[in-house]
Amino acid sequence: MKIVYVLPGPISRTEQGRQEMERRLEILRSYAAPGTHVDIVDVDEGPASIESLYEEYLSIPNTVDLMLEMEKKGYDAAILGCYGDPGLDAVREVTEKMVVVGPGEAGVMAAAMCGYRFSIITVTNSIINPLHHLVEKAGVGKKLASVRAINTPVLELANDRERTIQKLVEEGKKAILEDRADTLVLGCMSMGFLNVAEEMSKELGVPVINPGKTSLKMAEALVGAGISHSKLAYLTPPKISSGQVSSSKGLLVKKNKIVQ
Amino acid sequence: MKIVYVLPGPISRTEQGRQEMERRLEILRSYAAPGTHVDIVDVDEGPASIESLYEEYLSIPNTVDLMLEMEKKGYDAAILGCYGDPGLDAVREVTEKMVVVGPGEAGVMAAAMCGYRFSIITVTNSIINPLHHLVEKAGVGKKLASVRAINTPVLELANDRERTIQKLVEEGKKAILEDRADTLVLGCMSMGFLNVAEEMSKELGVPVINPGKTSLKMAEALVGAGISHSKLAYLTPPKISSGQVSSSKGLLVKKNKIVQ
Amino acid sequence: MKIVYVLPGPISRTEQGRQEMERRLEILRSYAAPGTHVDIVDVDEGPASIESLYEEYLSIPNTVDLMLEMEKKGYDAAILGCYGDPGLDAVREVTEKMVVVGPGEAGVMAAAMCGYRFSIITVTNSIINPLHHLVEKAGVGKKLASVRAINTPVLELANDRERTIQKLVEEGKKAILEDRADTLVLGCMSMGFLNVAEEMSKELGVPVINPGKTSLKMAEALVGAGISHSKLAYLTPPKISSGQVSSSKGLLVKKNKIVQ
Amino acid sequence: MKIVYVLPGPISRTEQGRQEMERRLEILRSYAAPGTHVDIVDVDEGPASIESLYEEYLSIPNTVDLMLEMEKKGYDAAILGCYGDPGLDAVREVTEKMVVVGPGEAGVMAAAMCGYRFSIITVTNSIINPLHHLVEKAGVGKKLASVRAINTPVLELANDRERTIQKLVEEGKKAILEDRADTLVLGCMSMGFLNVAEEMSKELGVPVINPGKTSLKMAEALVGAGISHSKLAYLTPPKISSGQVSSSKGLLVKKNKIVQ
Amino acid sequence: MKIVYVLPGPISRTEQGRQEMERRLEILRSYAAPGTHVDIVDVDEGPASIESLYEEYLSIPNTVDLMLEMEKKGYDAAILGCYGDPGLDAVREVTEKMVVVGPGEAGVMAAAMCGYRFSIITVTNSIINPLHHLVEKAGVGKKLASVRAINTPVLELANDRERTIQKLVEEGKKAILEDRADTLVLGCMSMGFLNVAEEMSKELGVPVINPGKTSLKMAEALVGAGISHSKLAYLTPPKISSGQVSSSKGLLVKKNKIVQ
Amino acid sequence: MKIVYVLPGPISRTEQGRQEMERRLEILRSYAAPGTHVDIVDVDEGPASIESLYEEYLSIPNTVDLMLEMEKKGYDAAILGCYGDPGLDAVREVTEKMVVVGPGEAGVMAAAMCGYRFSIITVTNSIINPLHHLVEKAGVGKKLASVRAINTPVLELANDRERTIQKLVEEGKKAILEDRADTLVLGCMSMGFLNVAEEMSKELGVPVINPGKTSLKMAEALVGAGISHSKLAYLTPPKISSGQVSSSKGLLVKKNKIVQ
Repeated sequence: MKIVYVLPGPISRTEQGRQEMERRLEILRSYAAPGTHVDIVDVDEGPASIESLYEEYLSIPNTVDLMLEMEKKGYDAAILGCYGDPGLDAVREVTEKMVVVGPGEAGVMAAAMCGYRFSIITVTNSIINPLHHLVEKAGVGKKLASVRAINTPVLELANDRERTIQKLVEEGKKAILEDRADTLVLGCMSMGFLNVAEEMSKELGVPVINPGKTSLKMAEALVGAGISHSKLAYLTPPKISSGQVSSSKGLLVKKNKIVQ
Repeated sequence: MKIVYVLPGPISRTEQGRQEMERRLEILRSYAAPGTHVDIVDVDEGPASIESLYEEYLSIPNTVDLMLEMEKKGYDAAILGCYGDPGLDAVREVTEKMVVVGPGEAGVMAAAMCGYRFSIITVTNSIINPLHHLVEKAGVGKKLASVRAINTPVLELANDRERTIQKLVEEGKKAILEDRADTLVLGCMSMGFLNVAEEMSKELGVPVINPGKTSLKMAEALVGAGISHSKLAYLTPPKISSGQVSSSKGLLVKKNKIVQ
Repeated sequence: MKIVYVLPGPISRTEQGRQEMERRLEILRSYAAPGTHVDIVDVDEGPASIESLYEEYLSIPNTVDLMLEMEKKGYDAAILGCYGDPGLDAVREVTEKMVVVGPGEAGVMAAAMCGYRFSIITVTNSIINPLHHLVEKAGVGKKLASVRAINTPVLELANDRERTIQKLVEEGKKAILEDRADTLVLGCMSMGFLNVAEEMSKELGVPVINPGKTSLKMAEALVGAGISHSKLAYLTPPKISSGQVSSSKGLLVKKNKIVQ
Repeated sequence: MKIVYVLPGPISRTEQGRQEMERRLEILRSYAAPGTHVDIVDVDEGPASIESLYEEYLSIPNTVDLMLEMEKKGYDAAILGCYGDPGLDAVREVTEKMVVVGPGEAGVMAAAMCGYRFSIITVTNSIINPLHHLVEKAGVGKKLASVRAINTPVLELANDRERTIQKLVEEGKKAILEDRADTLVLGCMSMGFLNVAEEMSKELGVPVINPGKTSLKMAEALVGAGISHSKLAYLTPPKISSGQVSSSKGLLVKKNKIVQ
Repeated sequence: MKIVYVLPGPISRTEQGRQEMERRLEILRSYAAPGTHVDIVDVDEGPASIESLYEEYLSIPNTVDLMLEMEKKGYDAAILGCYGDPGLDAVREVTEKMVVVGPGEAGVMAAAMCGYRFSIITVTNSIINPLHHLVEKAGVGKKLASVRAINTPVLELANDRERTIQKLVEEGKKAILEDRADTLVLGCMSMGFLNVAEEMSKELGVPVINPGKTSLKMAEALVGAGISHSKLAYLTPPKISSGQVSSSKGLLVKKNKIVQ
Repeated sequence: MKIVYVLPGPISRTEQGRQEMERRLEILRSYAAPGTHVDIVDVDEGPASIESLYEEYLSIPNTVDLMLEMEKKGYDAAILGCYGDPGLDAVREVTEKMVVVGPGEAGVMAAAMCGYRFSIITVTNSIINPLHHLVEKAGVGKKLASVRAINTPVLELANDRERTIQKLVEEGKKAILEDRADTLVLGCMSMGFLNVAEEMSKELGVPVINPGKTSLKMAEALVGAGISHSKLAYLTPPKISSGQVSSSKGLLVKKNKIVQ
């Protein structure tokens, strides 16, 4: 089974980014089941980081094209490397059979199987409402106890790992005591690669879902079960299915100013 | 009061498109209250038409930038010219005070004030589920009786106006009799400019919401009431609010292949 | 366009009441768009003020009759002058084409278009549950963050305007911080004529809906859009539609004690 | 235990009406448990019959006053004699301890204890939506399969009892087969006194709730359990609780036209 | 009318248990309406007390059989003597006409008729989530304000009655002030036989539902109304209805180890 | 990784049953990922087949004990071999770390990741309502389009496989066309071992979830992700956690009739 982790930002444009991609790849490969091969790719152009809905949207066009390319290369599954699952439905529209896993969706589904109520602990207040929508769209809003934020920018998460864990544990405790959560989800892919879920889980005594690890495992499960997204749900865009344009790129047209 | 209608596709790239823009502008101006000035603009690049979620996403980056430009030009309100309200939340993130009206949202809000249950009659089956999500997001899912499609491609709507009306009336009747709708919404902007709502309403005896007209009236109402979107709900992207980048365009970065 | 504001209590029975009516009329006229003419009327008999569901019901019979009269006089729209929208559905049953705006319904609809979650700040605890029902009935319960009360009787609101604003700001802050509201609605028509919404909005940084102003603007919008309530939703009472009785008054019958 | 059945219309104004009251009283007394005494009263003025929301509202002021009188006379419980429960909340506001049973509420509560999903079979289409709201307000909307109407005016129900039963069975069958109902409720008090529930139940093989009988039994149960409505939910109107006015009548004031 | 209270644990195996059964029987008989005869029985084998879902399940097989026996003995109604209503649906599957009352279901239905929002005060945190599910299943989840626990084991409730009442009042107060409850339900049958509901109600000023008393009254009401569970909802197990096995016991089969 | 499939009925008591167990084991092993070892066990005593809620309950005590034994034997995960997930919560109460997969829960979670709306196609009408509850409890009720039954007893499914597939395809088609499902779930474990999902999927063009295969894959995924059920959600029964009894068996006590 071949799975690819697709980064919606051009992280490899810096040396540090390339190292981080390498590090994430190693972690993902350490999670993989025997027989699963994992790769990692990033887009050529995209937002430096995703901290708003606008940046989510900005990331979508190039990510969809890269996903289409990955399906053509024969990958069985692809993981969309941003917790907000930007463009997950569009990727499913253009792909045919490749399993496309959104870490937001996959993480809350796993959480829903662990208990009665889960909380998401994410980075900043600005995405609390969008994450509520993500959970509603995933269909498990009934089990959502709360979305809480530690209000630390993504890029600072790794700088002071101890402080990050401390804040995560603090908000997790509030989720358990004030919101009646019995299961927690880390609501950010960078948190997923900090290896903090296990420590939090030990400290708090509840399952803590690592979205990166869980996405990989869900990808393996769906591929293994022979299931992918319903093309009746995510119809191929008519202009592509009719052969009018050959790739997603072809869907964009420009004003030809000279002709005018 | 100055209101601008923003087309998310580069419709003016053809002569026919320029005429259609002109025609729509005239219709909108005929709807406008005394004291309301209406303009129309389209993006430089975007999808030829929007028939999938992917094309919705493709339209967002340029539309957001154009919206930002419109706010700078002093418009009091802008109408997002696609019934699916693509990127409505992102536009609200980057704008400060300009009222931004999504015709999907505005139409169902008006419908909700007319009766107990409304149905949306739209173009194709492919957007039935996305429109359910749009209504849920707008917050009035409880009053949604159904979304029905006449399964006619957008571009053919105007070709045989009589046939289109006949199909709309047929589906509207089913919505009333089978889904218990008492109010109907036209779920497509092109339908909004065909002037069919009045005929349907007369034929079926229920209010039929024209999304174009209603969007303009809602824009006037919100501007008049001195209300715009909450910046606590739609926070300005941090990289813009901190001054790190000066426009939405600045949010995109590229891999610098040469430097490597 | 002619719009009338209908007071469900006989406020003009005192000199002070007549002045207040005059004051409100001036305010409403100042809100009106060019081309909109606003009038104000009150019922001959009704509750002195509305502080319970029972007083809401007591206000309905005379208000419905007055509304019917207003439609006959040619008004395009009428605003029901109590935030609880008492008898809104009955008014829509007896009227044919006149737009009937309930400030409760209109206010929360506007709020729903501003953000993800709104809170209503009202006068007393006693109407918190009824307002929850109003919002459910309006169809936007999903966006309701909370209903909070400042626990000041209606008649005292204007006496100490500074204290009223202070309390409104206090509860508004709690709604934002504790209930995750991003938009506020003033849940009382008297608040609507205190001109406090703008101050609150400035202080709290979120939109604050003034139900009076918003009702007028929604009335203009619906009339402008050519939309009114669905007569399939609000059927004319059979005894009136069949011509059995000629007005709503005729629906009441008495025991003829002499005959017995 | 003393229970009174309160008719919201002045049915005793005709000889036929007096006979119907007598007949209903006998039926109710035949239902009563040993030790329960039942009486029947009607208002002096009210709608001839209730076929619209407006007529529901028209019935409330006099009914509330009569209810208050009944509490003063020492009744342990009162049944509001209209399936739509008009003014149920207002009656609870003005009464202190008397159990007030709404047949709409009581009937659906009993139905909810019988199975997974119930349907209401009522008289005319015009009250289908209001009955949906009644069930939502009662709190058991989740178990509501459908509201169906036989479209026979109330006054004709008794004229051709066989035809009425046939229609009820027809709609009941559809509710079972098409809406997955396993329990039925008769949605009209007149149906409740036609003694059709047992026949329908035998024919259809499911419980059929008679709202009259069930209301009496619920009244006995609540009185027997020592439970009545929460005065924290239904607060006494401030003007009454403060002693400002001595009865509900005092809440209405008139314009003094001479003084002006 | 004959009603039997069925204890799902073999409480009579100790002298103290026999006394408690006797005591409960006397209390129930004191609640009974004239003409109602009450008996009490317990199972031969079952959990010592029910403090987990597992113990709920363990109690079901013998309780169902005892219920079936009670129906054969001619009881009109049976009360399932555990607040969690374990196996209520299974009992309804095997019985034909006997009314089967679950105190959990009956209590929340009564509470729902008292106000807008109720809270359940139960013994331990461990059953808070299961009680939420019970209320959802009963169909009145919309009116549930909260489930709160005093965290006192069932067996200690009676030892220090004053302390128990104090804790109940404390949690009840929080339910009212923090969760907006206007009605309370005692979420444990042992609480139901401590005669604390009246004291709590006096102290807190809201109705407090005693599940034991209310179950008896609901049983009388349903029997009196001639209503029982829908056999279309709770179908008789096919192997019983087809005559394949004659009792519920026959549904269990064993491996015949010798034959192998 | 070691996974065990636990049959809640004593299927191995007949030769045919032993062959069926063997057959299922082979199928499960063919699904297993490299590195996953699968075993199969059945209870000593239980229902012959599960066709009612009562039989579900009857199966629970022995199944829970067998599950506890499996955890002691070192299995990483266990699959509860009945689509209705009987006692899933109780198993999670008594086990500590072993992943416990309910095929009902696992199947609908997978379906929820495939599209907007799924339908369950099950064996008989009698379990349609219980399956609705199962999906609600699992938390994905919002995505449930319908539960449909082919009304073929479990034991006949395999006898005429072609006829079974034909019926499944028929109901599946109705689910797609009438209920707007885009994904289907086989709602019975026997269906899961008939290898019909692939054929249905090909015929209908939508994903069809095989609950057996999917349960195994979800078990592998959860074990691989290091996640199991939250012990805060499913607390160990107090009598076990306190050491009062050493196994679940110890929770049952009997009346000692002789001692009396």
